[in-house]
Amino acid sequence: MTNSEKALQMHEQWNGKIETTAKSHVNSREDLAIAYTPGVAEPCKVIAKDPDAAYKYTIKSNTIAVVSDGSAVLGLGNIGARAAMPVMEGKAVLFKEFGGVNAVPICLDTQDTEEIIKTVVNIAPAFGGINLEDISAPRCFEIEARLKELLDIPVFHDDQHGTAIVVLAGIINALKVTGKKMEECKVVVNGAGSAGVAITKLLLTYGFPNVIMCDINGMISKSSPNLNWMQEKMTEVTNLEGKTGTLADALVGADIFVGVSAPNIVTKEMVASMNQDAILFAMANPVPEIMPDLAKEAGAKVVGTGRSDFPNQVNNVVAFPGIFKGALEGRATQITEDMKLATAKAIAGLVADEDLSENNILPEAFDPRVAEAVSKAVKELI
Amino acid sequence: MTNSEKALQMHEQWNGKIETTAKSHVNSREDLAIAYTPGVAEPCKVIAKDPDAAYKYTIKSNTIAVVSDGSAVLGLGNIGARAAMPVMEGKAVLFKEFGGVNAVPICLDTQDTEEIIKTVVNIAPAFGGINLEDISAPRCFEIEARLKELLDIPVFHDDQHGTAIVVLAGIINALKVTGKKMEECKVVVNGAGSAGVAITKLLLTYGFPNVIMCDINGMISKSSPNLNWMQEKMTEVTNLEGKTGTLADALVGADIFVGVSAPNIVTKEMVASMNQDAILFAMANPVPEIMPDLAKEAGAKVVGTGRSDFPNQVNNVVAFPGIFKGALEGRATQITEDMKLATAKAIAGLVADEDLSENNILPEAFDPRVAEAVSKAVKELI
Repeated sequence: MTNSEKALQMHEQWNGKIETTAKSHVNSREDLAIAYTPGVAEPCKVIAKDPDAAYKYTIKSNTIAVVSDGSAVLGLGNIGARAAMPVMEGKAVLFKEFGGVNAVPICLDTQDTEEIIKTVVNIAPAFGGINLEDISAPRCFEIEARLKELLDIPVFHDDQHGTAIVVLAGIINALKVTGKKMEECKVVVNGAGSAGVAITKLLLTYGFPNVIMCDINGMISKSSPNLNWMQEKMTEVTNLEGKTGTLADALVGADIFVGVSAPNIVTKEMVASMNQDAILFAMANPVPEIMPDLAKEAGAKVVGTGRSDFPNQVNNVVAFPGIFKGALEGRATQITEDMKLATAKAIAGLVADEDLSENNILPEAFDPRVAEAVSKAVKELI
Repeated sequence: MTNSEKALQMHEQWNGKIETTAKSHVNSREDLAIAYTPGVAEPCKVIAKDPDAAYKYTIKSNTIAVVSDGSAVLGLGNIGARAAMPVMEGKAVLFKEFGGVNAVPICLDTQDTEEIIKTVVNIAPAFGGINLEDISAPRCFEIEARLKELLDIPVFHDDQHGTAIVVLAGIINALKVTGKKMEECKVVVNGAGSAGVAITKLLLTYGFPNVIMCDINGMISKSSPNLNWMQEKMTEVTNLEGKTGTLADALVGADIFVGVSAPNIVTKEMVASMNQDAILFAMANPVPEIMPDLAKEAGAKVVGTGRSDFPNQVNNVVAFPGIFKGALEGRATQITEDMKLATAKAIAGLVADEDLSENNILPEAFDPRVAEAVSKAVKELI
């Protein structure tokens, strides 16, 4: 049986990958009188007087919503709400299994920005956090920004920030392995959607002085036509020399390549044109921008991908469960830029110096220390 | 420790009465590849082509949302979304414990009818049914009616129909105990909110020819001032003689009293003025319209209340878990009037003729046959 066949079979068997389970069992009239009427009126009354008590008496303290409109699902594109459900359920499973965070998948029957914002605001009272997922750019930027303003609970678009955090963690360790200095590094990010923008922003915040973004038309600069509002905004802080040209042109003399784009678009020649000991994160899935062996042959020192069958897998699962675990435990109202940086450092720090190598820059997804370390990093900044 | 104190203590200990639990565990890279990427893409693709497959591969098949705006919570009134959560969580617990139905509590940060409708439509793709709860009248009527039109999954306002079904079940058996004939019965329903309206409608559908509704101003008729649109509509099918007067006037010569109103508003004198072997459902909570012992002293034959410490408790929990269990298992798109009648008969039928008595007209909430019998009654009509 192929992996695909097995996945279908198992999804049919699960018939939904999560369930709701009672923590308060109801086996007697007395149980009923405590968990439901009339006893339940007591916590209701306390919360009505003190809304903050919701964190003491309800699921708000440890439950988030995983919200998608199904507009940009995995490599599948705009498949809509119903078809996005298996992914959101999977994400809910990972939140619980890796972070102990209860998560409810909510797929929205609208792709209108305003309606999405209103709907999430309306359902927010039950939840302690909102994880946005698989919403297409540039709508995802506005939706996240507006929700952060409107809500007093953390809102986090994982496709953006989860990816950015793990890439930064990998780069922090790749710098150690290669001996490169951030101040001297030229970084090229290929792909200007949600992940590409967020990675670029976080690398700039971390301190990389020189980042160039590329899209399918090559380097993005102030003179590029047809940019969306977010890409335009990015031209103010990237490619400060206003270079133009192809991705190949951008890569000449670059130290770091980060791809969130398309399969096989980076050639050996392009890698060979990069600086010595180049660092590549080729995260197109399932086929990366360049296969690791080819990149290595062309002189790359460290290569990461999105795949679990190659070294240095960039896997968001080392970030998002611990981030929400920490945010909920510490009752954060936002996931701040500082938290993202601290999280990346914490993830990088899980690979001990003596274990660091070109093929070992990131902790394993199943490393049990990960969620704890990440949540601690978040909580220290609340 | 009082019951109230214990309820508070337990709610703090539970810190949320439900949790999400993974049915697909993720303990290895292979697990991850089946439940999440890349395997998860397979069910997504199938659902994108055939939306109906969501019932095969996602939680839609066995999960409902318990939706409230917190506007009419228990006896507490309009306490808002956050404070309503303990009740909705309790309801979610009962759905799972009694019916095996997964239920997610969703409390809405809006009390605007249009926004509630839009929000529920927007979140519907994840769910196989919507249980509306504790939404004030008359908005609840419009919200339910519109959602039934807009959605292809069952929408059920339990405060209305759950209550109505159990009251009808009790009345079916009370008629047997008293030997009264439906055709000759005069029924008075006191309280013209969501439950009162739904009870009246279901009794009329069942075949009671003569029902009079009362509110705080007495009998409701076409000449009553200040009725809401639903109450006005009810005047076309109730109180066909157009009587006016107080509740006391209405009860003279009545056979059945159903109260969903206020404590202690029915006196012994009023009961004494009713026909012989009167049937009373005095469901104001926690203090009924008249205490059962007083009603009995005044000549009532059968008295039901909402309380578990008196005989004949009218408890929705014998209805709603089984109704959604049946609706989900049979993939009903609506809960029809026929299903409500069949459900009431099924509940009544659980008390064997030889066990029937004035103090035993309804099955126990914890009777394990209940959810099965109710779900079967629903499924037979799909």
